[in-house]
Amino acid sequence: MSRVAVVTPLIETRIRGEPVFVKAESLQRTGSFKLRGAWWRLSSIPDAQRGAGVVAFSSGNHAQGVAWAAQRLGMPATIVMPHDAPAAKVAGTRASGAEIVFYDRATESREAIAARLAEARGAVLVPSFDDPWIVEGQGTAGLEIIDQYRAATGRAVERIAVCCGGGGLSSGIALGAPDTAIVVVEPEGWDDMGESLRLGAIVPVGPSPPATSCDALQTLRVADLTFGILHGRGATGVAVSEAEIADAMRFAFETLKLVVEPGGAVALAAALAAKLPLAGTVLVVSGGNVDPATFRAMTA
Amino acid sequence: MSRVAVVTPLIETRIRGEPVFVKAESLQRTGSFKLRGAWWRLSSIPDAQRGAGVVAFSSGNHAQGVAWAAQRLGMPATIVMPHDAPAAKVAGTRASGAEIVFYDRATESREAIAARLAEARGAVLVPSFDDPWIVEGQGTAGLEIIDQYRAATGRAVERIAVCCGGGGLSSGIALGAPDTAIVVVEPEGWDDMGESLRLGAIVPVGPSPPATSCDALQTLRVADLTFGILHGRGATGVAVSEAEIADAMRFAFETLKLVVEPGGAVALAAALAAKLPLAGTVLVVSGGNVDPATFRAMTA
Repeated sequence: MSRVAVVTPLIETRIRGEPVFVKAESLQRTGSFKLRGAWWRLSSIPDAQRGAGVVAFSSGNHAQGVAWAAQRLGMPATIVMPHDAPAAKVAGTRASGAEIVFYDRATESREAIAARLAEARGAVLVPSFDDPWIVEGQGTAGLEIIDQYRAATGRAVERIAVCCGGGGLSSGIALGAPDTAIVVVEPEGWDDMGESLRLGAIVPVGPSPPATSCDALQTLRVADLTFGILHGRGATGVAVSEAEIADAMRFAFETLKLVVEPGGAVALAAALAAKLPLAGTVLVVSGGNVDPATFRAMTA
Repeated sequence: MSRVAVVTPLIETRIRGEPVFVKAESLQRTGSFKLRGAWWRLSSIPDAQRGAGVVAFSSGNHAQGVAWAAQRLGMPATIVMPHDAPAAKVAGTRASGAEIVFYDRATESREAIAARLAEARGAVLVPSFDDPWIVEGQGTAGLEIIDQYRAATGRAVERIAVCCGGGGLSSGIALGAPDTAIVVVEPEGWDDMGESLRLGAIVPVGPSPPATSCDALQTLRVADLTFGILHGRGATGVAVSEAEIADAMRFAFETLKLVVEPGGAVALAAALAAKLPLAGTVLVVSGGNVDPATFRAMTA
């Protein structure tokens, strides 16, 4: 694992004068943490099955992770992506040699398209979060956080705040960092994991969720697997507004010198908006795949 | 040293399909490598002298490094900065509690103003490059590059390409990495170190140098100290155009997910413009302190 996924830096910064740490997964290969789970899953596929390749669906970060891992392993990859995926994510996926099949978020089911393609080709379907290999792979970020935080401060990390779409990264980190409080952060109106954790049962996103810049976090329903892990660990949820997300992207640009995508900025947004304690906290910045025009508009 | 300056990441990327490594000093505390030398110099000032503080002149990166180090050591700092310094650099310097004295690049001598202030206050004048402590401090980046490159590749780094204003960073790295070829990179028309190395004697920048976005590299004459080290090591020079610098800032944004300032992007620019061999090379990205408007304009 360590020879493929990068050990991303844990960067110390200050918010309201208090030190806090940022885990910069935006500096991971392919620009997001998704490479971790994709590599872990794909490298576990037996040699005999590799020739038929893999199929995945994703708005772009999982797409790039799977495409990169497939290329490295010499496997063909087909990715089902929404028509409105950021151009940067489409380009990144294509750059790793994957075939892209577009679908319409409003009228088509990406799950159905991907399942059909996988069956027709005999390929392995690689889910973006509802898969124990994927969860375990993302969790390596949690292992790194524990070691890096201790090396930097001499103490144990108390709390990890992390974005949540389907919950692959957050549940993986919950497994990788078993003695740490986990706070999942979601955009307002898309905070179904937080609501599910409060209620003790999975509730999907409501029927007319608000528009959000977080293309990576528009998952309509979390999985039994990811919810079960987070609920078992007593994780809690926080929601952030679009203005708070833009503030976080601007802070990352001006202070951290990092390019962060909207969905990757939500944990930082929660900290800047004083929705989290800062002492003992690590904020996961999960990705940096954002179109230049979106970045300029949100950081202006 | 290691407890104050951050060990910045060595990031692997690809240019024209070939792997090459970027040393991201933009992720150093204060947003540039300058903290290394400033901390090394200031922390060597005897206790009895610390009360009178320090004085420095800088367009902004050395300013922020000195201001940060002074604040950490409880020393007052006064920084002489040009009126046209980027707002981000002025704000960063002020955020560390330094007093700022502005001057006009065209009509005033920052050296004279700083010398006068230092004498009046009994303060230590901290040069930005013409000082063995400063050079040695910047050189810690070179020590890290050697170790990080070997850890990543199992091989010795062959070549380090690094921006050059006065030559503090490049000569420090030349000392810290004694078995490595050193290539200094400068903006066209400001490539006086490269020209001096070719001629074997210091020549200053010409009388009407072209406008450049690289506020950090507008040094009119290098020092005997820095030139002597680089010349003794057989360093060579490369010049890059404004368009090549903008290309590099865009590449850093889109591919590396890093915010890089113009002067910090010149080594990357040389590699992208095929002015350097890529195999065995580390490109130093030296800083990320750029105003949002400049960043947007140059990456558009």
